[in-house]
Amino acid sequence: MTEKHTIVLETKAGTDVIDITPNVLETLAKSKINSGIACIFVPGSTASISTLEYEPNLVKDLKRALEKIAPERGEYEHHKTWGDDNGSAHIRACLLKPGLSIPFEDKKLILGTWQQVVLMDFDTRDRERKIIVQIIGD
Amino acid sequence: MTEKHTIVLETKAGTDVIDITPNVLETLAKSKINSGIACIFVPGSTASISTLEYEPNLVKDLKRALEKIAPERGEYEHHKTWGDDNGSAHIRACLLKPGLSIPFEDKKLILGTWQQVVLMDFDTRDRERKIIVQIIGD
Amino acid sequence: MTEKHTIVLETKAGTDVIDITPNVLETLAKSKINSGIACIFVPGSTASISTLEYEPNLVKDLKRALEKIAPERGEYEHHKTWGDDNGSAHIRACLLKPGLSIPFEDKKLILGTWQQVVLMDFDTRDRERKIIVQIIGD
Repeated sequence: MTEKHTIVLETKAGTDVIDITPNVLETLAKSKINSGIACIFVPGSTASISTLEYEPNLVKDLKRALEKIAPERGEYEHHKTWGDDNGSAHIRACLLKPGLSIPFEDKKLILGTWQQVVLMDFDTRDRERKIIVQIIGD
Repeated sequence: MTEKHTIVLETKAGTDVIDITPNVLETLAKSKINSGIACIFVPGSTASISTLEYEPNLVKDLKRALEKIAPERGEYEHHKTWGDDNGSAHIRACLLKPGLSIPFEDKKLILGTWQQVVLMDFDTRDRERKIIVQIIGD
Repeated sequence: MTEKHTIVLETKAGTDVIDITPNVLETLAKSKINSGIACIFVPGSTASISTLEYEPNLVKDLKRALEKIAPERGEYEHHKTWGDDNGSAHIRACLLKPGLSIPFEDKKLILGTWQQVVLMDFDTRDRERKIIVQIIGD
């Protein structure tokens, strides 16, 4: 069985890291599928999905690590193409990827105790994001 | 239902970034499965799959970011093992991973407008690559 | 069809990189599913799954690259939250992600000749890890 669900979220400019675990669990609760894989995917080329112990200090550490990899105020050739200023967001999203598949059982994600599912929106302006939760299983 | 499809591509030495969206869409068009997950996976330990706004300047920015993470002309212990020169390619591929699962509906990938599926071949010689598109769904 | 399997492993403090290919293949051999996707996922926020040519020199190179991205003895805000010392492990795991989906056929993973599935445990203490292999297919 396959089901497509959509989570809609407002995000803030800069690297906005949002705990979407409750949204994904709500989606699974509504689903007819008990066990399988949830493919969590954000359409767009400036955001990613991963997991993190979601606490404010670690979010700061994550932002600092990402600044080292692709600094927000760095120089990017991409800025010459469209006059955009979000080259860092594109690079971060390509490296961290737009999706993550997580196994679930009895409508619960199989996660560690200190592990939350996060949307990371790297874009340099506020956005509305649609996150797809494609559920496959029995 | 499960279907296995294969995309065959020639790649160039260095970090060759290729838009494979048309190939994946062609694969989905031929499939009997309408909706589900496409697990796009490149066998081999020196290439990765992700998504990117595929435009030449951003490809340059991506190559520069990868050079910072694992420089092509850096020193690698791996070079002592086989006399290879592609340590950077192995490290990049391990960090960026060989596969990406993308949801699809009505035989169309659920992507953003400016988001293409890319093969990144990090190897230091020309290669022929076989990319697996494992399709699961209804 | 969906099946959930579990691999249990002991890991060592520091970045312990373990070849889990034999464990995953053993899991597939026991399964009733012949072809599909294996979603290999480590619950917890300080470990990741990827693929690597598993040879000791390349493991050294990988550790060096990870040290550049998030140094084990660096300063992390997270250490102030719980008195932990594993901020580097959390950052590495978020960037490299906890899971990887790999296609399989005739109960064999579709991998390159020099490509092994690895668990990377970034934590700063010895751990017991449970790795979920969620198998979907026919």
